[in-house]
Amino acid sequence: MSASFAFRLLATDAGGRLGEIATPHGVIRTPAFMPVGTAATVKAVYPDQLAAAGADVILANTYHLMLRPGAERIARLGGLHRFMRWTRPILTDSGGFQVMSLAKLRKITDGGVSFQSHLDGASYELTPERAVEIQCLLGADILMQLDECVALPAARAEVERAVVRSLAWAERSQSAFARNLDLGLARPGQALFGIVQGGIDGELRRRSADALVAMEFPGYAIGGLAVGESPEAMLDTLALAAERLPVDRPRYLMGVGTPVDLIEAVARGADMFDCVLPTRSGRHGQAFTWSGKVNLRNARHADDPAPLDPASSCPAARDYSRAYLHHLIKSEEYLGAMLLSWANTAFYQQLMAAMRAAIAEDRFAAWASETKTRLDARSR
Amino acid sequence: MSASFAFRLLATDAGGRLGEIATPHGVIRTPAFMPVGTAATVKAVYPDQLAAAGADVILANTYHLMLRPGAERIARLGGLHRFMRWTRPILTDSGGFQVMSLAKLRKITDGGVSFQSHLDGASYELTPERAVEIQCLLGADILMQLDECVALPAARAEVERAVVRSLAWAERSQSAFARNLDLGLARPGQALFGIVQGGIDGELRRRSADALVAMEFPGYAIGGLAVGESPEAMLDTLALAAERLPVDRPRYLMGVGTPVDLIEAVARGADMFDCVLPTRSGRHGQAFTWSGKVNLRNARHADDPAPLDPASSCPAARDYSRAYLHHLIKSEEYLGAMLLSWANTAFYQQLMAAMRAAIAEDRFAAWASETKTRLDARSR
Repeated sequence: MSASFAFRLLATDAGGRLGEIATPHGVIRTPAFMPVGTAATVKAVYPDQLAAAGADVILANTYHLMLRPGAERIARLGGLHRFMRWTRPILTDSGGFQVMSLAKLRKITDGGVSFQSHLDGASYELTPERAVEIQCLLGADILMQLDECVALPAARAEVERAVVRSLAWAERSQSAFARNLDLGLARPGQALFGIVQGGIDGELRRRSADALVAMEFPGYAIGGLAVGESPEAMLDTLALAAERLPVDRPRYLMGVGTPVDLIEAVARGADMFDCVLPTRSGRHGQAFTWSGKVNLRNARHADDPAPLDPASSCPAARDYSRAYLHHLIKSEEYLGAMLLSWANTAFYQQLMAAMRAAIAEDRFAAWASETKTRLDARSR
Repeated sequence: MSASFAFRLLATDAGGRLGEIATPHGVIRTPAFMPVGTAATVKAVYPDQLAAAGADVILANTYHLMLRPGAERIARLGGLHRFMRWTRPILTDSGGFQVMSLAKLRKITDGGVSFQSHLDGASYELTPERAVEIQCLLGADILMQLDECVALPAARAEVERAVVRSLAWAERSQSAFARNLDLGLARPGQALFGIVQGGIDGELRRRSADALVAMEFPGYAIGGLAVGESPEAMLDTLALAAERLPVDRPRYLMGVGTPVDLIEAVARGADMFDCVLPTRSGRHGQAFTWSGKVNLRNARHADDPAPLDPASSCPAARDYSRAYLHHLIKSEEYLGAMLLSWANTAFYQQLMAAMRAAIAEDRFAAWASETKTRLDARSR
């Protein structure tokens, strides 16, 4: 375990950035896609499959883990890495986004959020300080500040109020993290990211970014996107926010996205991503391939002996016929969800590896244009 | 692919038999436990995990596969082995048992069984000839005759009628299989087993066994047990049937059972077993270990950093804490069902391997007595 957090920008090409983030649990090659391990497991995928697929880092959800099995319990058991048997870096979110989307009777004030668990109705409070404490207890390599994320479209005043509140919470999160470092609850090398908010309002985004940059976070997330706005608005906002962020810090675009979204976002300077799409789609019979999405529920696959991708390094994509995958999905067999979640997770990692190679070799623009065309093939 | 089917009895000890069955897809070491791959997948377990756990053979269900994806389709795709990526032997049942337990509007006559699919209500007929044909299309290494299995308790006349009908079906199955061999639909080395019926009536069991032995099947199943009778009656009936069967043919006790059942049945001369218990229990949070059953739903495991069995060769049993397994099962995560199905499948194979070693070393009686005591520990 190294004790340092550091971002190195290795190359840039056509807006894309090639880099490396050093963390206590190893290096994250960027652009990086983080599979989502909501409840301390990436659904239906074994940890060693994630590692073999090339995932350097996964995301875990503070909201789910604080409710079950509980942050203090995970800390007693040696932290989240040991608990779920994942030896590489983990990024945790702050819990705020999921409180707003999942919890019952939630109430948000300047102090924090109070809510009832969607599992058993028990009451909880999540403050900026508690969100940092939980993530320290989990032992995350990268922690996120508590923020307020507004669903779009929203009135400007509402978005502005969330920006102001999120900035105040950023300061409180930073202070809490520094205290935890002093107390030994946080360890050197762990890093807390600030989150840029502001909806799709350019002025608010700039204000949020500038204020966070002044606080000197080791990395910045761009939150509050992919929450109802158009793809164009999302990308424009990303570009605008990225422009205000220091080039020597990683930028994490939260909750994005489809393969094409990822390419577009990398071209606008984003370095890190997370999304449930590869695993959720896999459970529902949808596969991502270099020729676009494949819906395995479709009867046209029932007699097809071909695999999803004979050239893939992932056994799930390379070795099992579409006919078999179709059968498993139609039969609602565990193995269908397992194989497609694995194949999709691997595809997303292959996509990121291809982007990194293209940036390294100064051919990202051509690669992106060609790949988007291939990926946009109609779902079959 | 060898073209021979052969059983070699290597040693006997305290009623237990150590043997080897040669099949077109390799050798089955007996006593053997066959994981159940109902719909062309052992639920929540990868094929390579089964092989690594030491499973020489799996069972697949004719009833499920004839309905979905269809036997002719699997044949077009190269057979069941290729379809599900399992390179070792496969035994298929005849479909009869599951027609009676799952199908709607089933009607049984001397000709066969007609029924409606539990999936979509479509009408099907299963005759002795069609059951053999389907199993040939699937490419099973070991095929089972269509039989009639009566739920117990039942009137003697009903059991006797089923014995008579099953014997007639045994002859028709054998003739159909011989014709399929001539036609090239069956291949040399595939073997059709007869099934002894007769409830727990000693005279009927003897009559069934003697008639089947006269027909000279390459192996014999003992069916119609574990369907409502007491464990003692099951074991007594097994012993009685096994006594009438030739020592140089394998004996398959269908649908059994718990670890202790398996030990008792091996001591009464049974060589092969199948049961959904390890995988079904796994999906429900129950683990089998050398110290008895462990119910991972129980809150006492929530803080337990110990694995199920630190000495196991199975990663699922050895490397993951009970606390994590408890969390996964409580959270209804795929990985919980995956890990426990894997661990249980591996435990059953370890149990069979231990029995084979004990028989080989002439210490089966002592091993069985000691092991039953350990396994009978209260479920925790």
